[in-house]
Amino acid sequence: MADEKALTTRAEDFAAWYNEVVLRAELADYSPVRGSMVIRPYGYALWENMQRVLDGMFKATGHQNAYFPLLIPQSFLAREAEHVEGFAKEMAIVTHTRLRPAEGGGLEPDPESRLEEPLIIRPTSETIIYSMFAKWVQSYRDLPLLINQWANVVRWEMRTRLFLRTAEFLWQEGHTAHATEAEAEDEARRILGIYREFMDGWMAMPPVLGRKTESEKFPGAVRTYSCEAMMQDRRALQAGTSHMLGQNFSRQFDLTFQTETGSEDYAWNTSWGVSTRLVGGLVMTHGDDTGIICPPRLAPIQVVIVPIHRGEGERNVVLEKADRVARALREEEIRVHVDTREDMTPGAKFYEWERKGVPMRIEVGPRDVAQEQLVLVMRSTPTGRPRKETMNDAAALAAVPRRLNEYQQELLEAARAFREANSHRGITDYNRMREIIEESGGFVYAGWCGGAACEEKVKAETKATIRVLPFEEFRSPEAPTRCVVCGGAATAEAMWARAY
Amino acid sequence: MADEKALTTRAEDFAAWYNEVVLRAELADYSPVRGSMVIRPYGYALWENMQRVLDGMFKATGHQNAYFPLLIPQSFLAREAEHVEGFAKEMAIVTHTRLRPAEGGGLEPDPESRLEEPLIIRPTSETIIYSMFAKWVQSYRDLPLLINQWANVVRWEMRTRLFLRTAEFLWQEGHTAHATEAEAEDEARRILGIYREFMDGWMAMPPVLGRKTESEKFPGAVRTYSCEAMMQDRRALQAGTSHMLGQNFSRQFDLTFQTETGSEDYAWNTSWGVSTRLVGGLVMTHGDDTGIICPPRLAPIQVVIVPIHRGEGERNVVLEKADRVARALREEEIRVHVDTREDMTPGAKFYEWERKGVPMRIEVGPRDVAQEQLVLVMRSTPTGRPRKETMNDAAALAAVPRRLNEYQQELLEAARAFREANSHRGITDYNRMREIIEESGGFVYAGWCGGAACEEKVKAETKATIRVLPFEEFRSPEAPTRCVVCGGAATAEAMWARAY
Repeated sequence: MADEKALTTRAEDFAAWYNEVVLRAELADYSPVRGSMVIRPYGYALWENMQRVLDGMFKATGHQNAYFPLLIPQSFLAREAEHVEGFAKEMAIVTHTRLRPAEGGGLEPDPESRLEEPLIIRPTSETIIYSMFAKWVQSYRDLPLLINQWANVVRWEMRTRLFLRTAEFLWQEGHTAHATEAEAEDEARRILGIYREFMDGWMAMPPVLGRKTESEKFPGAVRTYSCEAMMQDRRALQAGTSHMLGQNFSRQFDLTFQTETGSEDYAWNTSWGVSTRLVGGLVMTHGDDTGIICPPRLAPIQVVIVPIHRGEGERNVVLEKADRVARALREEEIRVHVDTREDMTPGAKFYEWERKGVPMRIEVGPRDVAQEQLVLVMRSTPTGRPRKETMNDAAALAAVPRRLNEYQQELLEAARAFREANSHRGITDYNRMREIIEESGGFVYAGWCGGAACEEKVKAETKATIRVLPFEEFRSPEAPTRCVVCGGAATAEAMWARAY
Repeated sequence: MADEKALTTRAEDFAAWYNEVVLRAELADYSPVRGSMVIRPYGYALWENMQRVLDGMFKATGHQNAYFPLLIPQSFLAREAEHVEGFAKEMAIVTHTRLRPAEGGGLEPDPESRLEEPLIIRPTSETIIYSMFAKWVQSYRDLPLLINQWANVVRWEMRTRLFLRTAEFLWQEGHTAHATEAEAEDEARRILGIYREFMDGWMAMPPVLGRKTESEKFPGAVRTYSCEAMMQDRRALQAGTSHMLGQNFSRQFDLTFQTETGSEDYAWNTSWGVSTRLVGGLVMTHGDDTGIICPPRLAPIQVVIVPIHRGEGERNVVLEKADRVARALREEEIRVHVDTREDMTPGAKFYEWERKGVPMRIEVGPRDVAQEQLVLVMRSTPTGRPRKETMNDAAALAAVPRRLNEYQQELLEAARAFREANSHRGITDYNRMREIIEESGGFVYAGWCGGAACEEKVKAETKATIRVLPFEEFRSPEAPTRCVVCGGAATAEAMWARAY
């Protein structure tokens, strides 16, 4: 059981607050394996809900799931030069396949079991997947090939932040092959649209969409597109990326096909992914000083019913009503939990479910039985309306799905309003930009000359990076004309921020 | 595309037949990583259907999913002596975390990144999971703790057989903690019942249930229970196991709790799992010389509709009817695919879908449009009734779900009849037992004295092992009195077979 000491507030120390709410909501726990975490049942239920929705979206757009090996030969990773450069410093390398008793006691890897070629635990699967595609694709008729994989990956990291930065994490990685560049480009952008639809509509975490700069793109990609969401500490979270890989990997893995006109060409690839990091994003978007807040559409429990009673007589009528309400709501496909634990006070239960971010609580006491009413209490009040409403039974039952939908919308609107309130547009003075980044944080929109030197200077001096060159919809009404750093002609509007 | 040469038959070479049907149905493929396979979309769809059903059964009995680290410190595995003994020879060991340029070109593990303690890719997760349980469990109120994990595991194997034996495989592993021995024992047996229900009712692969002998039990378990199914080559497949672990792991990982009376005790654990091996079992239970056969309840595609037409005029009316039939069946929640490919003959399509084991094909040609009829063709005919039926539209639409249900039953009955026909009971003569095992194969039921020496002798001389000491329901009507090997007093009836 989590201890009951007061939480660190977001204002005091956002990072400490984050760890505390994640642990106390029992989303995850530290593991004895350095760099790795354990996803506890409540956190995993959130991830399962995310998976189910995304998986449905992928399948509805023609993608199929498959599974590829965890272990990749070192030589495969080395084939695409930028790719291996990007990952070589953070790999888990398998070198032996047997333990033997060590001289001083204990066990050690048996030198005789040393692998001729080391195997790498996948940090991502482009290389192994495109080597298989090369085997499966002969002709344009086999294209497009639209594959997704739900898997674990490992990128060596010792500075663990639950969900946000761990050596091992869970994700989906999509990998596709197309006959033309235009089709691959369309796919990369279609997926970004799916991610956005999911983040807006389900997570209530509205991202800014755009293209990454050369220095920030995926190692091996031609172009990387990204969804960047604003957390409550006004930092950016890279929440999902989609890469147009061009023919970079198909050339290395000989992924060719016979075109409709009979010639031979390399296929065009895309890859894209979101990970358990989204759970961290959800916490940092909506949580408050009491705990996490689950948007209703993803909440493992949407409504918790807390019966309140003293003595046997009250107990029976109250529990009977609680069960009746639960059944009625389940018929509306609402995820309901009745908390019948006998060894806890109602107040302690309220607090526990608030910590766990359940969107709505229904209190059922003897008076509610007598007066045929229910007390509905929302987890928070983004619009300032009262959290608590008492209604007669029929009105309350009708209100529950409506209030959950409204709450989902309210959370989205609040997150969007927060993002916009902390977006600084039309910044033309570099000192002003530094001041914003260093003092208030947030997203800074300003002109950029396209030069890596200016990008690097901002990063070195402020720790902010260009998160994206935003798509049209997210750009400022007036296009900047000068680079905010060097004053040269602007080639694009860039969105700068410190990021996770 | 798979090539079209005639398949090896089961009678000619069962192992070769198995590989061919798996590859040609596009269930899986060999990967360039020695010991690992790729699960292709069609095979993965089968596995997803299996997962969905099992996951529902686990959740309905109070289990929750979670996720634990892939990498386990070597010292954890070493704590339970039998456990490490059982797995030490087949491990993937991570020793380094960075690559660097090698002197002769290429890359090599950077010696400076050598881990102080090697990490093992989980071959199973008892150690890491019970170390976490120890952190979460304080009191009897926290019990039972019923956790399941869907994950990949690695056990070093170089002799790959698709789905049956690969270094990496996918599985679920359940891990539970209980306050009493009796509860843990009940859990281990409840899960075996769930596995059986799934294998009988969904896979149409009826297992024999029982207890493993000491020499065959899971390393670290007190008792192992198993589901053993008979493949068409009359070998046994260990299809699912459930282990009563006693307090063996809780003692090593200090998994204690305060009892209701205030004393301190070690928790009682169980663990249990089924894996992607089940896909191989399904193939070897039902497949025929044409290809695999999917039982309807697990089939990714339950009905394939093949339109047959020449010229534009026919094409339109035929496709319109095919779509109409598909929509009507989808409303009945039947998984339908309409094969509209233009570059294949109907015959080639029939053959492809038979190879892929789709339970039912519906042919729609111009005559079927004119006469308002449909031609239904079952994948096979376990009872000998005609595969092909022509019915008027309404009768046919009503017949589809019924025929799929019947076919599911027929496959189960056929598998059970095959198993019983190849089960040899009341064997009292050791030479006769050897003869059966070596010549015809099958399950041999005979008395056993309980001695490891007799068990070992049979294994050495015939390669058959005691698959289980069957539960009462599976035992012969007359209990054997003597050990078939040594002639001593029998302590149990044993079921011997060669196994995968």
